[in-house]
Amino acid sequence: MLRIGILTSGGDCQALNAAMRGVIKGLSVKRNDLEIYGFRDGYKGLIYDIADRMTPDDFSGILNRGGTILGTSRQPFKKMRIPDENGLDKVKAMKNNYRKYKLDCLVVLGGNGTHKTANMLREEGLNVVTLPKTIDNDLWGTEMTFGFQSAVDIATDTIDRIHTTASSHSRVFIIEVMGHKVGHVTLQSGIAGGADVILLPEIPYDIDKVAEVVENRFAAGKKFSIIAVAEGAISKEDAKLKKKQYKAKLAERRYPSVAYEIAAALEEKTKREIRVTVPGHTQRGGAPCAYDRVLATRVGAYAAELILNKEYGYMVGIVDGDTKKVPLSEVAGKLKYVDPKCQMIKDAKTIGISFGE
Amino acid sequence: MLRIGILTSGGDCQALNAAMRGVIKGLSVKRNDLEIYGFRDGYKGLIYDIADRMTPDDFSGILNRGGTILGTSRQPFKKMRIPDENGLDKVKAMKNNYRKYKLDCLVVLGGNGTHKTANMLREEGLNVVTLPKTIDNDLWGTEMTFGFQSAVDIATDTIDRIHTTASSHSRVFIIEVMGHKVGHVTLQSGIAGGADVILLPEIPYDIDKVAEVVENRFAAGKKFSIIAVAEGAISKEDAKLKKKQYKAKLAERRYPSVAYEIAAALEEKTKREIRVTVPGHTQRGGAPCAYDRVLATRVGAYAAELILNKEYGYMVGIVDGDTKKVPLSEVAGKLKYVDPKCQMIKDAKTIGISFGE
Amino acid sequence: MLRIGILTSGGDCQALNAAMRGVIKGLSVKRNDLEIYGFRDGYKGLIYDIADRMTPDDFSGILNRGGTILGTSRQPFKKMRIPDENGLDKVKAMKNNYRKYKLDCLVVLGGNGTHKTANMLREEGLNVVTLPKTIDNDLWGTEMTFGFQSAVDIATDTIDRIHTTASSHSRVFIIEVMGHKVGHVTLQSGIAGGADVILLPEIPYDIDKVAEVVENRFAAGKKFSIIAVAEGAISKEDAKLKKKQYKAKLAERRYPSVAYEIAAALEEKTKREIRVTVPGHTQRGGAPCAYDRVLATRVGAYAAELILNKEYGYMVGIVDGDTKKVPLSEVAGKLKYVDPKCQMIKDAKTIGISFGE
Amino acid sequence: MLRIGILTSGGDCQALNAAMRGVIKGLSVKRNDLEIYGFRDGYKGLIYDIADRMTPDDFSGILNRGGTILGTSRQPFKKMRIPDENGLDKVKAMKNNYRKYKLDCLVVLGGNGTHKTANMLREEGLNVVTLPKTIDNDLWGTEMTFGFQSAVDIATDTIDRIHTTASSHSRVFIIEVMGHKVGHVTLQSGIAGGADVILLPEIPYDIDKVAEVVENRFAAGKKFSIIAVAEGAISKEDAKLKKKQYKAKLAERRYPSVAYEIAAALEEKTKREIRVTVPGHTQRGGAPCAYDRVLATRVGAYAAELILNKEYGYMVGIVDGDTKKVPLSEVAGKLKYVDPKCQMIKDAKTIGISFGE
Repeated sequence: MLRIGILTSGGDCQALNAAMRGVIKGLSVKRNDLEIYGFRDGYKGLIYDIADRMTPDDFSGILNRGGTILGTSRQPFKKMRIPDENGLDKVKAMKNNYRKYKLDCLVVLGGNGTHKTANMLREEGLNVVTLPKTIDNDLWGTEMTFGFQSAVDIATDTIDRIHTTASSHSRVFIIEVMGHKVGHVTLQSGIAGGADVILLPEIPYDIDKVAEVVENRFAAGKKFSIIAVAEGAISKEDAKLKKKQYKAKLAERRYPSVAYEIAAALEEKTKREIRVTVPGHTQRGGAPCAYDRVLATRVGAYAAELILNKEYGYMVGIVDGDTKKVPLSEVAGKLKYVDPKCQMIKDAKTIGISFGE
Repeated sequence: MLRIGILTSGGDCQALNAAMRGVIKGLSVKRNDLEIYGFRDGYKGLIYDIADRMTPDDFSGILNRGGTILGTSRQPFKKMRIPDENGLDKVKAMKNNYRKYKLDCLVVLGGNGTHKTANMLREEGLNVVTLPKTIDNDLWGTEMTFGFQSAVDIATDTIDRIHTTASSHSRVFIIEVMGHKVGHVTLQSGIAGGADVILLPEIPYDIDKVAEVVENRFAAGKKFSIIAVAEGAISKEDAKLKKKQYKAKLAERRYPSVAYEIAAALEEKTKREIRVTVPGHTQRGGAPCAYDRVLATRVGAYAAELILNKEYGYMVGIVDGDTKKVPLSEVAGKLKYVDPKCQMIKDAKTIGISFGE
Repeated sequence: MLRIGILTSGGDCQALNAAMRGVIKGLSVKRNDLEIYGFRDGYKGLIYDIADRMTPDDFSGILNRGGTILGTSRQPFKKMRIPDENGLDKVKAMKNNYRKYKLDCLVVLGGNGTHKTANMLREEGLNVVTLPKTIDNDLWGTEMTFGFQSAVDIATDTIDRIHTTASSHSRVFIIEVMGHKVGHVTLQSGIAGGADVILLPEIPYDIDKVAEVVENRFAAGKKFSIIAVAEGAISKEDAKLKKKQYKAKLAERRYPSVAYEIAAALEEKTKREIRVTVPGHTQRGGAPCAYDRVLATRVGAYAAELILNKEYGYMVGIVDGDTKKVPLSEVAGKLKYVDPKCQMIKDAKTIGISFGE
Repeated sequence: MLRIGILTSGGDCQALNAAMRGVIKGLSVKRNDLEIYGFRDGYKGLIYDIADRMTPDDFSGILNRGGTILGTSRQPFKKMRIPDENGLDKVKAMKNNYRKYKLDCLVVLGGNGTHKTANMLREEGLNVVTLPKTIDNDLWGTEMTFGFQSAVDIATDTIDRIHTTASSHSRVFIIEVMGHKVGHVTLQSGIAGGADVILLPEIPYDIDKVAEVVENRFAAGKKFSIIAVAEGAISKEDAKLKKKQYKAKLAERRYPSVAYEIAAALEEKTKREIRVTVPGHTQRGGAPCAYDRVLATRVGAYAAELILNKEYGYMVGIVDGDTKKVPLSEVAGKLKYVDPKCQMIKDAKTIGISFGE
């Protein structure tokens, strides 16, 4: 008998179902004595023992379905060691439930926070294998995460649509792309969508430089400008603030989000009307693109191989372009930022894209 | 020699290029002595004589291109009779330029405001033929306008994407759909996207009823709710205000838009976290859908027929499902609202969609 | 207790699930004593008593899912009165199973053949309500069928993609669109995709005229031509044959389908290389477009109203742009062809589209 | 003065325009003394001096446009050294025209054949920089080519649509994906689309094994099967034939293409009806996906850097995940096949995908 627990945690993204299908297909091809427990809504299900006994058929036909059939929720790592409002020790509860179902392995799909908890469970003695899920592609230890390319596709589609309206109306448009700490989605959708300016959390901007680009374009006869802004884009002045100070400043911000703030600043500088579009949660919804389905299926399949070989304590990542196992201990707690000196940024600068520096 | 002026005015939408291609193709098939003047940025180009001499080839290959190759701008009807900041009489200027180019006919693509001005130009003695452009489908005299179905497609796609994230996270989501005065886009994308609640300008809502629907769904084990809200959705109390009072109230609103206001009210009522997504200008951008291309091509072709027959003073609309000419005098100044008693609303109510009444 | 049987029959298309969801939602809003039997694979399930007891929840979340959750199969009307290979009287069997489940009504989703059988069951005394499903939009008694607009979208997308390759390579391309007897999909996708020639079953073509259009385009400097051909396009000579003769001729045809035959004939006439693309079954697959979802939901809801009012023997169609009931006796056995003199054909001719006449 | 010639050669694909835009943007940002000559229809334009003087603006706004604004044609490498029907020495002609325009560099976008000719021109003393274009991703020296991911997206979309119709009708479907010599597109779209069997040129198949998979699925209660077949899929017997013999056999094949041949063989083995869908040229048409736009823009930008640095004789490829220069001499004449032992094949096998071995 092979007993598997599985859960999806953190913000949802595309191809979660595809990845789970990969794991379960990979296991059920080799083993017909499989017992699968799906924990509901992420670690919450493991903590509070909300689990469904599932069959391989439950994971069939979901390759291109968005969201996660298991549900998900955010369970911050830093609260994991703190008892809940009823005094329940969450870590103990998770270990108990793991044992209650006599699991051979717990499969966890998630992003950064999720991996910290997964690594902690590993340290606590559980057998854990993880899969790298996040639209942000900011997980350490893998070149790519599933969800990322789908998010880039959607953000690019948004920029494309704005392009036609911007050019028809001779307007400046700001599109706010997801990414509070890292700018991978903004960078790639910005390049793909033909943005003139791209503002990332990793490269603090100078509003005067941004205004200059816009004005130079109008001066050169270009009738519109497109600015792609990550949710976490930050000005040079703000980047100098201490984290606490900045948080306090953000809390007092008069605008719904950074794009509106930049729009207001730009309007003041340029005396032009600036429009804002925020695709928001659409970036994590809907069917995964083909790229993500291949990626998710492959890491899922590889995870099945690990489990069949009793190799635990790994995340399955993409290393040198291929599926590989990466020790969880090396992954947890690290973020993969956009390197301001990377070749992609250089290539973007070559064609005149401004990063507001 | 057949001399045609053409312009696109008001907010851009899909299939403007397709419609212009229809007109010019229809004319150039029959006449090779065609002289085409494209006025830039709507009536602005006609007022200030910003015109390009164009050829039929300029209108080739644009069937599926978003936006408008002529550019557009909003020129409010009520300011048309008022001289500009330099004292220029705009109506006189338009008539002069019409005559300067010895036009046989001016082709105007636009929505409500645009049609008022077009009708005024007709009254001033110009030969005018118009095409019904607007994502809102609120033009009187035609069953359908091009741009509408494309906007519905995009809004529906947004609701679809939100659906997967809403169901994965057990959340309530509000999607704000375009439509300040009329709710056609919201109604149809709401039905197509499987919204549980649809709030329209034409049917004032009661926030308690909306909260009730959400709570009933949770009570029935449904883990999420989707609310489609038109930009101009209005509460029952606000609907009782005089127009001026309401405008004043809106001006003081603390929220970026109506969806955020409803979200805040719902959060207070239900103590649940409510998320908002605003697809915004994406709803008018990008390639037109097949439906709009057929529609735009047909009304364009029909307009060409009118011009070849020297029949002026008409909008080409869809009446009884087919292209027809409709006197401009009957069209201008009237809005086509969602009738709260129409069969589509009834059908929606049959399947339990709430309009917050 | 309200007992409903439901089945989908004939070739699958988009929005079958949406329509069934509409019916069941409409019923379950008003009645909680609902008993639903889903017959598998069309009339086959009713004949051989292959039925699942289903709940309203089974019809939830399927609004945008392609195909049919009940399965479907083609059961030719003309064989219905003939016993099967085991001597089973199919009509009797259907009646028996209808009674076995004590059904109040049988809901049938299908196209032409399906409606003949549905009408026969009505004549046999069963309570039947039907919904108009077909990509062909050839059902008598309704202005529109669900599946049609989605098929047009897909065929148009195909033509769009071929357009870029045709123009890059200066080639003539033939795209074969679904439609053996009627040309609605070809006509509308042809217009939407910017086809230069459209060949329909309803308008026999002259290959010399088609060749002439292609040559005239090259002579005018146009570097490519796009020809949209319905599966059932027929030449003027073949149209003169008796039905039997034509069938015999088709049976001996050397080509996989009509597009290849026309390509060969055109190559001979023009000495140019002609390429063929056949999107085939993709035209009936995948998620329904927003238009079809609204349509399917509405006719489904209206059907629920009929059933709740005990009004049987109707198809729900679109008449004068709105949902209406249409007596089954008026619908069955009639096809809705493209009228060669209709306004849409006229509009298409206005812009120079050739029908090969 | 910097004088650049540019051409696109071979079968068209997505992102050709994006790549050219990248090159020209990259050059025009640094140099305003740019002179650009666009040669029409690939090497044909260079041989016969069909060139347009172009400006950077001509390459603006084409980032997401399918096809190539320069046109393309296939000019087989092995005929390059053979005079044309008028006795023209093609190589000499190309060199003459290169000199006529006093080019500093010729930028060539193409696939395998194109690169052989480009390398030959380099050997003949011309300054050449190339970009790797092909949907097949079979170019040596780069991990990825633009066009590939877009083709995978389209093929996957086809399989998705067929999936819903296959499951509704309990059918076996074969989808024929582009790729005569290499199977990258088929492999990835097969995995992304959830194919049960994938047949590639690199892994000869045994029709009995394929039939076995199909039968096993039916036996296990799976109601349909999806088989993704590359154009160049080959049976084990045929793989043993000498190249000449095989070509002769192909020439006599009764079927339009390999998918139909396999369908016939499978029908005979399984006595089941097998359907075929061939997306064909749609796989190289339409707007490029975001991934390809980023890739094409980057290699274009990098090419501009090379030209500005007077580094000639290189293809810009993706090596270790980033843009790099690769000597043309190392690229030309080699194909990058699917390695039957690669990790992606292993991962696919893990989840039970059969390669018909």
